[in-house]
Amino acid sequence: MIFMAFTQKNIGILGAGQLGRMLAQAGYSLGQKFGFYANNPQEPSINLGQAFYSSDAKSIQKFAEFATVITYESENTSLEQVQELNKSAPVYPGEKSLFLSQNRTREKALFAKLDIACAPNALVTSLADLEQALDKIKTPAVLKTTTEGYDGKGQFVLTTPTQAAEAWKAIGEREAILEGFIKFGRELSIIAVRNPQGEKVFYPLVENSHRDGILRVTQAPAQSLKPEIQAQAESYMQKLLDELEHVGVLTLELFETETGLIANEIAPRVHNSGHWTMEGAQTSQFENHIRAICGLPLGATAPKQPFAAMVNIIGEHGDLNKILEMPNTHLHIYDKEERPVRKLGHINTLAQTQEELDKQLENLSYWINN
Amino acid sequence: MIFMAFTQKNIGILGAGQLGRMLAQAGYSLGQKFGFYANNPQEPSINLGQAFYSSDAKSIQKFAEFATVITYESENTSLEQVQELNKSAPVYPGEKSLFLSQNRTREKALFAKLDIACAPNALVTSLADLEQALDKIKTPAVLKTTTEGYDGKGQFVLTTPTQAAEAWKAIGEREAILEGFIKFGRELSIIAVRNPQGEKVFYPLVENSHRDGILRVTQAPAQSLKPEIQAQAESYMQKLLDELEHVGVLTLELFETETGLIANEIAPRVHNSGHWTMEGAQTSQFENHIRAICGLPLGATAPKQPFAAMVNIIGEHGDLNKILEMPNTHLHIYDKEERPVRKLGHINTLAQTQEELDKQLENLSYWINN
Repeated sequence: MIFMAFTQKNIGILGAGQLGRMLAQAGYSLGQKFGFYANNPQEPSINLGQAFYSSDAKSIQKFAEFATVITYESENTSLEQVQELNKSAPVYPGEKSLFLSQNRTREKALFAKLDIACAPNALVTSLADLEQALDKIKTPAVLKTTTEGYDGKGQFVLTTPTQAAEAWKAIGEREAILEGFIKFGRELSIIAVRNPQGEKVFYPLVENSHRDGILRVTQAPAQSLKPEIQAQAESYMQKLLDELEHVGVLTLELFETETGLIANEIAPRVHNSGHWTMEGAQTSQFENHIRAICGLPLGATAPKQPFAAMVNIIGEHGDLNKILEMPNTHLHIYDKEERPVRKLGHINTLAQTQEELDKQLENLSYWINN
Repeated sequence: MIFMAFTQKNIGILGAGQLGRMLAQAGYSLGQKFGFYANNPQEPSINLGQAFYSSDAKSIQKFAEFATVITYESENTSLEQVQELNKSAPVYPGEKSLFLSQNRTREKALFAKLDIACAPNALVTSLADLEQALDKIKTPAVLKTTTEGYDGKGQFVLTTPTQAAEAWKAIGEREAILEGFIKFGRELSIIAVRNPQGEKVFYPLVENSHRDGILRVTQAPAQSLKPEIQAQAESYMQKLLDELEHVGVLTLELFETETGLIANEIAPRVHNSGHWTMEGAQTSQFENHIRAICGLPLGATAPKQPFAAMVNIIGEHGDLNKILEMPNTHLHIYDKEERPVRKLGHINTLAQTQEELDKQLENLSYWINN
């Protein structure tokens, strides 16, 4: 594979949250510079580069002039803005990745096109649509707005068809997808990376535990996987990366069922379920995203040890000294004010055996159960 | 040990070079903020925090107002400035550590007081002094200015007493120390950390290879060490840390001889021979320095794997893609312009066996020999 000479780039990030912060922490080791299109000076990335505040109408132009390559923190980024910015510097992941992943209808169509298994689903644009879809898909089912849902927001679980009107009102009477429930064992995810030269790397599948729609714990790699499951996940990712001509990190959330993997959703970005890679993998998802969007060779994705977990710090920091005193355990704080259900940081903990990992997770129970 | 509650601090760093840059990269994970007292906007730390430029006379006051704790990048930091800053925020390492380490005469007196073996030496303030000292110490010997020497600068090696006048002129006719040559096998160094609560941790001894006075390669841990040697190094460090009531990282450079370890010099700061700890140790020297000066519990210092090396990138970057393509190898670029003998970055490479490490070092020969 032929790579361009290594050059210093100005990386413009749309957004200034913890993902931007960790991208910059990793990217400085590669000699890159960072600028953030930000909302306010309290955001987690602000101190790690140049800030361009959205409150000033001229900022977006200055941001465009600063950046030699642009990326974004969220699939809820404005497509129009990305198209405009793409005139002055390449935006990665590209428009196709953003367009298809920011709308559940398009995402389901993409899975169908690529023969990637997903839950039975129907588009719903009215209460009548919803009632008709419930006839076909049955309950239990979940109604999800087609756009802007994350961390369990914009979702309503129906256990009986009589909840149709309540569900339709709860999600704001907006375009939505009704999804049938899948009987699944575990929630898994896979992170893959592709660079503009077409090189691809895949991290091992991880197991995610959510509560109230928010990721609490990731175990990496997922344990007791049937050998063909990692291969199936990588084959889904191969198809997605190629179809999207994706550049950067792509995340696919999956359900593990008795008949194999069912796709849930994609995210065209570094992902909370990949935070374990900071100390847990040969190359972190953040460094590999920076490598990819800069056209550099990708780094190895192998885990550094057989067992690792990531625990989110949610709502309150708690007694962080306890974490610093734990062996094989690493703290990452985002410098955000405490607020219910807010992600304030995460903890990575590494082990040689499952027993050792379980013991470490027991010592982290305050953060897991908080 | 009782620790204060974990709080966000504004860390003021005197200097804005690569050491400040790597301190900030590590410290952001602990939720800290950074400000740099800097010389110009091209310095490596500038984009990683607030900059206070020395060209503006009001900057030092603003820097003092910003900082809740202060540290420095170099033992050549002005003692008077540190004393003044210490009135508004604690400066770590403290005045005693700075005072004793920034002058070779005081440093030798400290070693003598603590019964730490060092090379025979004599203070030289005139050519006559030098000639007299040569009578006693004999050649080969090295004449070193008492202050501001680093990376082999301010030094002159005498192989015969007839070089006295030449040597005296070469170092600028300044106060100096004449040191007798030690017959030594290897150059080693040890890094230790102490926090204000008195907790201490020690990294394993590492082996350093210099060329033209500049560190080129560190192997960590140093191999084939007699078991008592690590203990001797730690005992030297215990005495130094206690005597100085040191807070932060302290580095001791040593010569390994047939009769044990001979102290060369101390540095009251994170050190080039500790850069391997970024990926090579449970907790990096940078994170542990931040932990120490913030009064937090110190992190484990054990190596993550049996063999590791750090290779400095000097003068020219070379083809950095080659490094990115190597397994178990990590790149750290400081964003500095190329210039002869300038440290531009470093490479950390990790291995399970000496053979594997040697092979990786062979693949890095461009940077080792550059």
